[in-house]
Amino acid sequence: MLVPVILSGGSGTRLWPLSRKNQPKQFLPLVGERSLYEETLRRVSSLPGADGSITVCSEDHRFTVGEQLQAIGVKSGGIVLEPVARNTAPAIALAAMHALARDSEATLLVLPADHLIEDEAAFRTAIDTARTLADDGWLVTFGIRPDYPETGYGYILSGDALVDGGHRVARFVEKPDLATAERYVAEGSYAWNSGMFLFKAQRYLDELARFAPAMLDAVRAAYSSASKDLDFIRIDRDAFAASPNDSIDYAVMEKTDRAAVVPVSCGWSDIGSWSALWSVAQRDSDGNRHEGDVISVDTRGSLVRASDRRMIATLGVEDLVIIDTPDATLVARKDRVQDVKTLVDRLAADGRTEHLLHRKVYRPWGSYDSIAVGPRFQVKRIVVKPGAALSLQKHAQRAEHWIVVSGTAEVTCDERVFELHENESTFIPLGSVHRLRNRGSEPVELIEVQSGGYLGEDDIVRLEDVYGRS
Amino acid sequence: MLVPVILSGGSGTRLWPLSRKNQPKQFLPLVGERSLYEETLRRVSSLPGADGSITVCSEDHRFTVGEQLQAIGVKSGGIVLEPVARNTAPAIALAAMHALARDSEATLLVLPADHLIEDEAAFRTAIDTARTLADDGWLVTFGIRPDYPETGYGYILSGDALVDGGHRVARFVEKPDLATAERYVAEGSYAWNSGMFLFKAQRYLDELARFAPAMLDAVRAAYSSASKDLDFIRIDRDAFAASPNDSIDYAVMEKTDRAAVVPVSCGWSDIGSWSALWSVAQRDSDGNRHEGDVISVDTRGSLVRASDRRMIATLGVEDLVIIDTPDATLVARKDRVQDVKTLVDRLAADGRTEHLLHRKVYRPWGSYDSIAVGPRFQVKRIVVKPGAALSLQKHAQRAEHWIVVSGTAEVTCDERVFELHENESTFIPLGSVHRLRNRGSEPVELIEVQSGGYLGEDDIVRLEDVYGRS
Repeated sequence: MLVPVILSGGSGTRLWPLSRKNQPKQFLPLVGERSLYEETLRRVSSLPGADGSITVCSEDHRFTVGEQLQAIGVKSGGIVLEPVARNTAPAIALAAMHALARDSEATLLVLPADHLIEDEAAFRTAIDTARTLADDGWLVTFGIRPDYPETGYGYILSGDALVDGGHRVARFVEKPDLATAERYVAEGSYAWNSGMFLFKAQRYLDELARFAPAMLDAVRAAYSSASKDLDFIRIDRDAFAASPNDSIDYAVMEKTDRAAVVPVSCGWSDIGSWSALWSVAQRDSDGNRHEGDVISVDTRGSLVRASDRRMIATLGVEDLVIIDTPDATLVARKDRVQDVKTLVDRLAADGRTEHLLHRKVYRPWGSYDSIAVGPRFQVKRIVVKPGAALSLQKHAQRAEHWIVVSGTAEVTCDERVFELHENESTFIPLGSVHRLRNRGSEPVELIEVQSGGYLGEDDIVRLEDVYGRS
Repeated sequence: MLVPVILSGGSGTRLWPLSRKNQPKQFLPLVGERSLYEETLRRVSSLPGADGSITVCSEDHRFTVGEQLQAIGVKSGGIVLEPVARNTAPAIALAAMHALARDSEATLLVLPADHLIEDEAAFRTAIDTARTLADDGWLVTFGIRPDYPETGYGYILSGDALVDGGHRVARFVEKPDLATAERYVAEGSYAWNSGMFLFKAQRYLDELARFAPAMLDAVRAAYSSASKDLDFIRIDRDAFAASPNDSIDYAVMEKTDRAAVVPVSCGWSDIGSWSALWSVAQRDSDGNRHEGDVISVDTRGSLVRASDRRMIATLGVEDLVIIDTPDATLVARKDRVQDVKTLVDRLAADGRTEHLLHRKVYRPWGSYDSIAVGPRFQVKRIVVKPGAALSLQKHAQRAEHWIVVSGTAEVTCDERVFELHENESTFIPLGSVHRLRNRGSEPVELIEVQSGGYLGEDDIVRLEDVYGRS
């Protein structure tokens, strides 16, 4: 059985303001209509013999992962929640244990969630080669044949060719300087380290036992107490936190004598910056990539993304990146986008939140978007998924007014429980115990107007919650 | 008596997206907190002997003019509404007739509403000189001593010096090419034609009688049937439309033998473009002018205006103009901003409305801002001024939900009339005859949520309207 393991790490800071801590790069539809995570899921689910992808992600992103898994509609092998981040080696160990619980012969295909692959046929051919090698006990890494001397990646030097395809890994090398990278590209036997691997689950754990026994012990202790909650696998926080923090490269691949590399050219990109996105995107004859409502005059070589309901007009500009979101717009020179991180650091230092949260916030029951705020009021657009319910709650300092735009909501307000239909509205007085529920089969969309002197999210007492938040 | 006449013409197209047809440049707070029109009002109202400024403006802008007049709190000599635009000569003739009705010896100080004057003392000194000349029967134009060879203005060549100060006008010259403009600046006897004038009202009409009798007749016919409505002077549309369309320069100043020029250096600017605004604004040590919530890294020579509740972040850019509004953002190279007009023409050709209307719309009773639109709903923030009322109206295809955020509204809904207090809400069913009124002394702020299948502004039947719109 081939078990895809999707590692949903990474913050995608350089893709701010679209990528934010609560919804990083891998969950965004950067190219096309699906997110990189959704594309990764779709890609691996159709591989021959693939069964039930395991996603390893942060607790914070569990509902987004759940929702995107559902949107793609593929069989899930479980969502393993990392209580704390410990880098890739322990994360893969968790996935290996979870896969072995299903199939003691499981082969893992480990992929980051935030990469793009344009040539899927080439990718599948490389996987076939890697599976043969894995069956022989090799730990395979996929090396991307470099198009240009990138200095932002590590490289892998191929050694002796193996009979079944691929090569022994001669050496892993750190991110090179430009001259070195140019030499690597010219030489032809170096490949980019893509962070994609294929090996037998048990082989990986065996190598961990040899090279990182403390890590293996910690992960085993954490996984042994795992509990299942819907599709989520929760593990012991303290046990997992005790694991050393290390990458698979350092912990295993650079130490094992059975590391193999399968070089591949498959249109791979990690979309590490806005200029990388511009490079992979289709562009018009002026070299522009426009998304959304963009009007441009004498504009060249630019990436412009307008956001919902807003127009971006450009005039006489060149090589810019303009990214609009409901609460922040970035205007940057395209060759400076590596420094978006500097901007994000500035936001953090200023105690702001635009790098953490999007205006639209996803919750287990649906989403809300704070579409307007003023003195004494806030307007939210709320969507409640079919079958979902908000917690039974009350607020000390605000009244709420709900107007149903579509669907039928079930409203609890103190002693009363009643239905609210399209175009109807109701009023939740300050202090009333209330709940919103969708018992229908379509989403309920409503407008909530909050009024009161204090409107913070923390003015909430949760009395009951089906998602365990009370 | 000195009667300031403020001509509120001009569309300010080059200051899009801030300046729009329904709220052009002169009504915007471009420099400081007051609009250029408000600043002009304030400046002239404190002149010795000045009494009751007359504003000449388009019908479309009457409520904005009324509101800004009230905000400045100076005595108004009336707001003359031009039913159609006929350029400056007929507009000034209207103002002259209106001033003469008050004082047969009135002196007019004619000023465009959209200019900035930084050195008011120099401006006042020039006016003193001009008044002496006007008393002698001269028609005075103020010439701005040029700082640089601008090719976008006409120039005035000074002739013989007059005993009381100023000069005879030797010649008016059209916008020159750069080489000619450079020669003018070097020569020292040329000044920019600023569109500011001072003369006896009767002298102006006498000159019109001589050089443009048809215009005088048409304006006299239009003014003779004028009616007063609050502070507004409404004149006959057809009679005024019959007037030739001409500027005071062509119709009078270039023909009269009594044209004088008073040259002045008073920090004058017509803020004709975003780069002009950047030039007059205070800038930081990197040459940037930031307004609103702007975060910039390695940014130079740029004008960045963020709009309410949204952040603009810039990185590594130079000499840009970035102007954000709730529905459109402009990003332009600073030396290309003369071509903003090209963008606006494009919007017009595409049948769009972003060049005509701001999202926030002013009405006689207050304002509304469409803060969110989606399928089947629209959310508006509405402000009703003290004492004001919306029309008695009904809608065929939408229900409305009103939530009062501050103040107390009087609501009429079919047979019922009731008060709606802070934090309270009500529901106007589809087809109900309703009205919103503010009987209090503070503005009423409310959130209106419209729901229904069609939400256009044209789904309205007005049954009664205090502003004559039913």
